[in-house]
Amino acid sequence: MQLGMIGLGRMGSNMTQRLMKHGHDCVVHDTRAESMTDLQEQGAKGTTSLEEFVSLLARPRAVWLMLPAAVVDTVLAKLVPLLDKDDIVIDGGNSYYHDDIRRGGELKSHGLHYVDVGTSGGVFGLERGYCLMIGGEKDIVKHLSPIFAALAPGKGNVPVTQSRAEKANGDNTADQGFLHCGPHGAGHFVKMVHNGIEYGLMAAYSEGLNILRNADIGLRSHEADAETTPLQHPEHYQYNFDLPDIAEVWRRGSVISSWLLDLTADALYEDPGLTSYEGRVSDSGEGRWTVVAAIDEAVPTPVLSAALQERFSSRGNADFANKILSAMRREFGGHVEKPAPKS
Amino acid sequence: MQLGMIGLGRMGSNMTQRLMKHGHDCVVHDTRAESMTDLQEQGAKGTTSLEEFVSLLARPRAVWLMLPAAVVDTVLAKLVPLLDKDDIVIDGGNSYYHDDIRRGGELKSHGLHYVDVGTSGGVFGLERGYCLMIGGEKDIVKHLSPIFAALAPGKGNVPVTQSRAEKANGDNTADQGFLHCGPHGAGHFVKMVHNGIEYGLMAAYSEGLNILRNADIGLRSHEADAETTPLQHPEHYQYNFDLPDIAEVWRRGSVISSWLLDLTADALYEDPGLTSYEGRVSDSGEGRWTVVAAIDEAVPTPVLSAALQERFSSRGNADFANKILSAMRREFGGHVEKPAPKS
Amino acid sequence: MQLGMIGLGRMGSNMTQRLMKHGHDCVVHDTRAESMTDLQEQGAKGTTSLEEFVSLLARPRAVWLMLPAAVVDTVLAKLVPLLDKDDIVIDGGNSYYHDDIRRGGELKSHGLHYVDVGTSGGVFGLERGYCLMIGGEKDIVKHLSPIFAALAPGKGNVPVTQSRAEKANGDNTADQGFLHCGPHGAGHFVKMVHNGIEYGLMAAYSEGLNILRNADIGLRSHEADAETTPLQHPEHYQYNFDLPDIAEVWRRGSVISSWLLDLTADALYEDPGLTSYEGRVSDSGEGRWTVVAAIDEAVPTPVLSAALQERFSSRGNADFANKILSAMRREFGGHVEKPAPKS
Amino acid sequence: MQLGMIGLGRMGSNMTQRLMKHGHDCVVHDTRAESMTDLQEQGAKGTTSLEEFVSLLARPRAVWLMLPAAVVDTVLAKLVPLLDKDDIVIDGGNSYYHDDIRRGGELKSHGLHYVDVGTSGGVFGLERGYCLMIGGEKDIVKHLSPIFAALAPGKGNVPVTQSRAEKANGDNTADQGFLHCGPHGAGHFVKMVHNGIEYGLMAAYSEGLNILRNADIGLRSHEADAETTPLQHPEHYQYNFDLPDIAEVWRRGSVISSWLLDLTADALYEDPGLTSYEGRVSDSGEGRWTVVAAIDEAVPTPVLSAALQERFSSRGNADFANKILSAMRREFGGHVEKPAPKS
Repeated sequence: MQLGMIGLGRMGSNMTQRLMKHGHDCVVHDTRAESMTDLQEQGAKGTTSLEEFVSLLARPRAVWLMLPAAVVDTVLAKLVPLLDKDDIVIDGGNSYYHDDIRRGGELKSHGLHYVDVGTSGGVFGLERGYCLMIGGEKDIVKHLSPIFAALAPGKGNVPVTQSRAEKANGDNTADQGFLHCGPHGAGHFVKMVHNGIEYGLMAAYSEGLNILRNADIGLRSHEADAETTPLQHPEHYQYNFDLPDIAEVWRRGSVISSWLLDLTADALYEDPGLTSYEGRVSDSGEGRWTVVAAIDEAVPTPVLSAALQERFSSRGNADFANKILSAMRREFGGHVEKPAPKS
Repeated sequence: MQLGMIGLGRMGSNMTQRLMKHGHDCVVHDTRAESMTDLQEQGAKGTTSLEEFVSLLARPRAVWLMLPAAVVDTVLAKLVPLLDKDDIVIDGGNSYYHDDIRRGGELKSHGLHYVDVGTSGGVFGLERGYCLMIGGEKDIVKHLSPIFAALAPGKGNVPVTQSRAEKANGDNTADQGFLHCGPHGAGHFVKMVHNGIEYGLMAAYSEGLNILRNADIGLRSHEADAETTPLQHPEHYQYNFDLPDIAEVWRRGSVISSWLLDLTADALYEDPGLTSYEGRVSDSGEGRWTVVAAIDEAVPTPVLSAALQERFSSRGNADFANKILSAMRREFGGHVEKPAPKS
Repeated sequence: MQLGMIGLGRMGSNMTQRLMKHGHDCVVHDTRAESMTDLQEQGAKGTTSLEEFVSLLARPRAVWLMLPAAVVDTVLAKLVPLLDKDDIVIDGGNSYYHDDIRRGGELKSHGLHYVDVGTSGGVFGLERGYCLMIGGEKDIVKHLSPIFAALAPGKGNVPVTQSRAEKANGDNTADQGFLHCGPHGAGHFVKMVHNGIEYGLMAAYSEGLNILRNADIGLRSHEADAETTPLQHPEHYQYNFDLPDIAEVWRRGSVISSWLLDLTADALYEDPGLTSYEGRVSDSGEGRWTVVAAIDEAVPTPVLSAALQERFSSRGNADFANKILSAMRREFGGHVEKPAPKS
Repeated sequence: MQLGMIGLGRMGSNMTQRLMKHGHDCVVHDTRAESMTDLQEQGAKGTTSLEEFVSLLARPRAVWLMLPAAVVDTVLAKLVPLLDKDDIVIDGGNSYYHDDIRRGGELKSHGLHYVDVGTSGGVFGLERGYCLMIGGEKDIVKHLSPIFAALAPGKGNVPVTQSRAEKANGDNTADQGFLHCGPHGAGHFVKMVHNGIEYGLMAAYSEGLNILRNADIGLRSHEADAETTPLQHPEHYQYNFDLPDIAEVWRRGSVISSWLLDLTADALYEDPGLTSYEGRVSDSGEGRWTVVAAIDEAVPTPVLSAALQERFSSRGNADFANKILSAMRREFGGHVEKPAPKS
């Protein structure tokens, strides 16, 4: 099947490669010619001209956008006038599902079809395959299924879910790693929540490992002053844990084994003190949108919210609030702030 | 009534003054003679000798300890052998109520009485009076009531609680600012929870004020990169709020008026940017014990826990966890940490 | 000064009364004639006809809307065509500040002025006065200041903030209980955050009191089974606390005294077990908007978020998530859910 | 190697079977003869007499306890007098690591060795192997390594951690699924934190799935009253998501794939509405201890704490706090509780 790909950053480039390996015919477009060279050598047609790109695609065209969310509307404004009735535009980036709903309607008024695809898998997707969460019209999604099947991991070596195996379910693609989740926006909605969960999982591991790292607190000397809570049982905190080994052992047989743990074990083995990081953690939108959706729905998300807020806090955004706390303490109790220990 | 006071830091000294103003006869003891000078000028008898201190008190003696929690047991070890049957020891500091339960039993085995008093009021207590939460034997607490009544604020100008006023309740002292809460440890248990609540209240104000302070975010220039979530509606965040004025206006007629807000308004008016603080917030034990008690009871305390943890985080204790998050993000997505903006 | 009031529910009616007591001339409008009777007896002109209402007001008119947020736009659609250049519309209800920004622009295009006023004080405002947080054009707000001054508590018996008193600040009204906070939306933004803080404060007290209530857990008999964590030290939880008395004693001299505590003490004294409540806690929007604003600003609000989510949870909205937890536990550990104890 | 196993519930029985399959010689003891029958048929020696059990073991004996934490000390009191110098006692259950530290010392004074083993794997361990986290003396742990190797999963089909593979590390057993973590208590400390993380992971999935389940909120009819926040954009919440399929698709290629997700997909496929659960979630101690340890260390754990507290709340333990919130709302705003919708 033929697919046009716009946007050849790491994700778009890897996905094009995976598609071609699975025998699909790819036409690529990027404003930077050099980002297409490798793909052209592997057999893709490439052009820096959007018009030529469109002309190279057979109708009904299928155009996949793999772009930063902030530029999708700009590119659509140029692309849509070049397309013909029944052409399909797929947004595989990290768009807000609100925008998908709007765009679905706008493209429909031009006789075009819009499909939103939440894509998970990161830099490993090229080899491992991408988990695809898809929103749009049913028949259009079905039409594109060869593309989705090629990008997705397939059944692979992930064990079959027992209860699912016992019941017939011929048409279902969930166990191949791609799924039509619902109408416009459904794909990015599910991807958004996926990322919200991801924040929670990541925080759970990192908090737990931080407890292990500080299990030696009874071995450290402590200042005795009115501003420091004394450790009541230093004998309970005499452990020097080897975090890389602990992350590794949890990978086999434990209840908390996961792909994120696999990655954590790798990162810790490479650099046990994680000295190359400052600990300023970015958030790229989906975590925020997840919590906002939960608030709209009045669904409690204490864990997902806390995970999001830890990231805000990691970037110093709680500093003013903390100063207010110190100011209050001085006001009512005459407490003077204790400076950071010299490291 | 006569009272012996051991420990003449700010709290012990102020309380002694307040007692003498109310006509009580005070004997004071501290290892530093100079800390007793002022009080002696105001009429207290003072001595650096613990033996002399005890001999100056009429039996049954009432000895109030106003000491750092960490030294109470040490002082008790010296004091108890000097006391006689039916003497009373009062711990007015910030002891863990577990220790009160233990000490209550130990002193009983010596024929002595132990009373634990949670004391709230801070540096303002000298004038405003202290809120006293008391644990111990009923008749002993009653015997000491003249002391408690002098230290407490009394009815003062705090309006009478309507429903309470409607019912007769002659014997009750809660509306005078002191209360026998229960057996040994009850006073410090209630004070512990008081402080746990205090953490929550403080955090609520400081978070809210931090939101107001950042309501100008739409006026600031923003970087557009994949690691920064774009602000979708800068037009909604164009406010330069005057925090000292807002804290002030809330003091009158609003639902959130409180004494802590009064103090916050003062601190903000003095130094609106709170530039003299670093934002490293100490915690002095009670907040931790409150959350641990809640866990023992299986009582959910999301707000009190979050308030406690913000303090831990303010002191940099989340740093390693945050580094793990950054490491995970690099592993799965190739994300590189974005450095702090130059200020 | 003359003011027209639309919407005579409890808030609008009380505010009109307070204005008339302070000598202002009030014209009132409501679709239900009976809701105006009392006010007419106290001297207000009233009419069920919106046209007549407008005609009774001298130009430039000042019209205060005290309506449910959901109907403000509907009323404005009828009102605006009846108004003349330079007339002023004030929204004193609980509008979302986004709507204020929009309405401010829309009314300006009609030559009208819009003022948003966040109003705090509840049913007590009639006597205690209302805390007013105001957004709009500076000169319009100044023009209305006699109205604001009458509604606000004034300096009253709230002690002067020390640092503020030391500096001259003639023009400032914050210490009279009303404040011009900024341009359109600023009033409701500040009120929104006020309510967000309110949620946090309320949660802090309620969690703390819940800990006290369960301090008798060591006195209760416990089942010993694999699904129940044993209480390790029952001897630490032998307290039967009197919550009404404890709430009362904290009102005097403690760090956590506040108006909300005053109300809590009243409610607990009336009904110590709060048996007339189910514990399903509504939220009326501002708490949600506060957390959403914080997320937009990337300001951490663990306490305010947790307080909001407790309310969602109180209404059963976590039930499905909890069922997933139980299902997971059965899957990996064969754990069977333990039913609720018979009460 | 020979091992004695005391306690033949599901875990102890499965572990014994796994050991025998790996060629180890097992002697078993339980007070219920019938719980040993199957194992005896598979080749184990079994006896209801503790004395006989001890006599069947060759010195130095290795005795594994697989008992509810609450009875370990009782059994030890009977067992220890029967043992001889240099015998080894292993506690593989869910003991609190504080108890391990104490017991390690007590057994040492009898010339015995104590090893604590945190065991993860649940009902799947028999086939999948158990992840073992071990605390105790180095040479004793090494002596027992054939036992640990048989119980653990081994390298299995879990991919090798890349950075680890690149460095030689011959002696390390982490990648075989068992690990000597440190001295007495280290095994259960690491297992405790493992479970704390487990709580966080579970909550993250369940909250996310709850958001998906309620993404149809815009399709439901809503009451319009002052106690209900109106849904501002019903058009954003028109999705009827198929949760079993979504859980399934996430298992392949996504960032959030994990063993817990595998189990969740199974549970949801079997019963998409989870109608067989009430949602009362037990907690069995380790989650609490994790948070308490974090508090002792002053390590922030907002996510792990929130996950723990959701469980408390799921059992109705927030009810009284919620009633206080409703009471406050009635006091200041005259708000009346809105009853639960009829289902």
